[in-house]
Amino acid sequence: MNFTIKDVLIPVEQGYATVDVQLVEGSSEGDRPTSIIEAIAPHLEVIGTAVDGKNKLLLPGFVNAHTHSSEMWQRGAIPPVPLELWLAELYDFAPLEPEQVYLSALGTAVETLLSGGTSVVDHLVLIPGKEIETVAAAVRAYQKIGIRAFIAPLIQDESLTAGIPDGEANREHETYLRSTEATLALMAKVVETFHKPEEGVNILLAPTGIQLCSDALFEGCIELSDRAQLCRHSHLLETAAQKLLAQEKYGCSAVEHLKRIGYLSPRTSLAHCVWLNDDDIAILAETQSTVVHNPLSNLRLGSGIAPILKYLQAGVNVSFGCDGASSNDSQDLLEAIKIGSILHNITDSDYHHWITPRQSVEMASLGGARGLNLADELGSLTVGKKADLVLYDLTNLSLLPRTDPIGLLVLGRPTNAVDSVWVDGKRIVADGKVTTIDVDELQKELFARSQWIDRRQSQTVSQIEAHYRLVMGLPKQHLTP
Amino acid sequence: MNFTIKDVLIPVEQGYATVDVQLVEGSSEGDRPTSIIEAIAPHLEVIGTAVDGKNKLLLPGFVNAHTHSSEMWQRGAIPPVPLELWLAELYDFAPLEPEQVYLSALGTAVETLLSGGTSVVDHLVLIPGKEIETVAAAVRAYQKIGIRAFIAPLIQDESLTAGIPDGEANREHETYLRSTEATLALMAKVVETFHKPEEGVNILLAPTGIQLCSDALFEGCIELSDRAQLCRHSHLLETAAQKLLAQEKYGCSAVEHLKRIGYLSPRTSLAHCVWLNDDDIAILAETQSTVVHNPLSNLRLGSGIAPILKYLQAGVNVSFGCDGASSNDSQDLLEAIKIGSILHNITDSDYHHWITPRQSVEMASLGGARGLNLADELGSLTVGKKADLVLYDLTNLSLLPRTDPIGLLVLGRPTNAVDSVWVDGKRIVADGKVTTIDVDELQKELFARSQWIDRRQSQTVSQIEAHYRLVMGLPKQHLTP
Repeated sequence: MNFTIKDVLIPVEQGYATVDVQLVEGSSEGDRPTSIIEAIAPHLEVIGTAVDGKNKLLLPGFVNAHTHSSEMWQRGAIPPVPLELWLAELYDFAPLEPEQVYLSALGTAVETLLSGGTSVVDHLVLIPGKEIETVAAAVRAYQKIGIRAFIAPLIQDESLTAGIPDGEANREHETYLRSTEATLALMAKVVETFHKPEEGVNILLAPTGIQLCSDALFEGCIELSDRAQLCRHSHLLETAAQKLLAQEKYGCSAVEHLKRIGYLSPRTSLAHCVWLNDDDIAILAETQSTVVHNPLSNLRLGSGIAPILKYLQAGVNVSFGCDGASSNDSQDLLEAIKIGSILHNITDSDYHHWITPRQSVEMASLGGARGLNLADELGSLTVGKKADLVLYDLTNLSLLPRTDPIGLLVLGRPTNAVDSVWVDGKRIVADGKVTTIDVDELQKELFARSQWIDRRQSQTVSQIEAHYRLVMGLPKQHLTP
Repeated sequence: MNFTIKDVLIPVEQGYATVDVQLVEGSSEGDRPTSIIEAIAPHLEVIGTAVDGKNKLLLPGFVNAHTHSSEMWQRGAIPPVPLELWLAELYDFAPLEPEQVYLSALGTAVETLLSGGTSVVDHLVLIPGKEIETVAAAVRAYQKIGIRAFIAPLIQDESLTAGIPDGEANREHETYLRSTEATLALMAKVVETFHKPEEGVNILLAPTGIQLCSDALFEGCIELSDRAQLCRHSHLLETAAQKLLAQEKYGCSAVEHLKRIGYLSPRTSLAHCVWLNDDDIAILAETQSTVVHNPLSNLRLGSGIAPILKYLQAGVNVSFGCDGASSNDSQDLLEAIKIGSILHNITDSDYHHWITPRQSVEMASLGGARGLNLADELGSLTVGKKADLVLYDLTNLSLLPRTDPIGLLVLGRPTNAVDSVWVDGKRIVADGKVTTIDVDELQKELFARSQWIDRRQSQTVSQIEAHYRLVMGLPKQHLTP
């Protein structure tokens, strides 16, 4: 697909420039034509369709670098509790039909696209017994809508209760529903069936984290990912409880352990990274691992503030994620970028270290691409890179009066400001509307398949809360009603 | 104006109920008819116009309890720096025409209304030499659009540099452009001319804060406010620098000092309150003062996290504000409510203290009303209270799938979810559109009167930065370029 965006504002080293951007059909990969940035300069000839860029800002697409799409079915539903209890309630009410997964993946993609994202990393919760169908449903949704998808099936080989430190207790845990070997075999099958980068679908190997995975599972994932140069993904030290647990489990920090078994690499992205110490940070820098910052989820679950300014100073690559929609409870990437940027101003009194809006944009785009090992193809307005682009309407009321466009975008609260989105040169949002699916229909389906609730009772929470409070040093009295 | 909202969802003690709400014309105050909540129950007779409430949620209007409307002209423009330097840049580029004040007040009102607010407290920056015209412009804007306005002209009697602690230095400050007496005379005139609660416009006495005001100014404001039972407003201990300054100035905490001179009262609301100690908190509780929490501004300026959970535990009334649009940089009240609620989960490991979505709604509505001494008239769905109401469309994609409506509204990222807004029974938003002004025209005006910028040079920042860094204990090297 050839097209030329005329008279569009782009950021340049000193301020902004008004330019034309030519996009031309690149080497067609498989059946899917791709477009490449051919030239960026004022007064270029129009190749293909002309797109009016006047009073608009063009940026590389952002990456929603960590989410769990099917959590959308429970957004707004779980009360304010920490991760370990939240997770127990989440799994008590998890959706069980692949069709639900399809719909929530569409919903996740719509919100990501309309907040500047062109790629999504879906750490996808698998429906027990319907694992392949779950992945197939997500693949179908993302291909239908046209967002670039990085599907990271969430795997583990230990039961939920194993994710909470023992403390003095000597607890037994149920055997997990699927063996390590079966899980690895499943993943081999998923990779074989669904990993088709040329069609916009990538599979990542993604054990949920040290809290629920054996070394054997991590090692199997390393092997599978190395075989085809796939990326790896995982949660890492999201909560204080997980830090405690790592000490119990390994006698060292989780980061040291993951380094030792070889999980960290330039192809590894790690969600959260809230509870790392300075030695851990040095290891992330040394292994060129990527931190995915999920600020809203970290606040909502009371996990803490990830030391993002320290990561940046140590040269660790950082990108942004929304995290799943029950711990956020949205998939608005611009919201995550804003809060994930300004939150850190309270952690360092020297404002020369604070994240600037331009840095935020680079973290969300190039940082996201780097974490997926695709910095040479995506993440910046660079000749030769793929046309994953977002056009913002600077006449939108939420971006007025006119000042610094990127300042407005990152620090403000842009509403309906995305005019167009292209992924691989295909325009999947135009005039602020998704063109590839019927959003009204999606809305009707989501409405019809749900109901308003107030409080609901999670049985698992009642079972584990007393132990959680004990081991975390919280007063015994009053459990959650 | 009589009307009846049919089949609408409202929160009740246990969950939600579907009811009808009758609104009938109350005692007409002045020329402005007001509507009062007459009855709330299922299957009521339709009085006046019927409004379809099906699949909608009705809540009392929120209060945007602290903002500075004319900052909208600089939103997105100021880089990430702390308050003291930010303020210096802000004033170097402040708007100078009352017509600009009119337009930014409209913009502030639009964003507040479309995010659930029905009242705004505008700590209004006065244009030097055009003070009365500034207030008149804001009054005109708020009356035109129909939001309930609480205009708090921002006054001071010391110059900007006096707001930064001296440390070892022995600085001299320029005399402020207006004397204390002249400022108090101006405020008496403003009260006399503009304070017309029956027309939806209220004047507050609002010295900017201890950092830039003499005791004489505070005392004059106390007298003026007591005379007509007006509310008082002020910034309080927003930054660490202000805490230092209070010690230098008074030899005690700012809160102790304000108590001593009689500024604190049930009619006093205090923006920020980030740097209070436990004794200070006890004083706020004892004097029944209100804290206005501005979480986004506190993060953006690196001011810190206000100890909101401690305030709530001490029984201090807390409401939410957006703060001015250059330190936020938006006027989306739902965003401030969300972040101002979840932010505190990281400050207390016992989740039983965390703010629930229902508490957030009460703080934003009844808490806001209480801070304006209007809890008997506004802030809840109660028979006899005024019809300041907001109707949310629960079929909106950002509020789907259906779960807990208030959980979705507070924890999610509602976009275009406000269907209707009534202030005093007048419907000023219908079908998601403001009905009282031409928003397209406003958009065109804001666009035409501004231009895109990148970096600009603030002369005042260059003058004060070295002293600021010194007194705050920051390394000498590199000043802001």
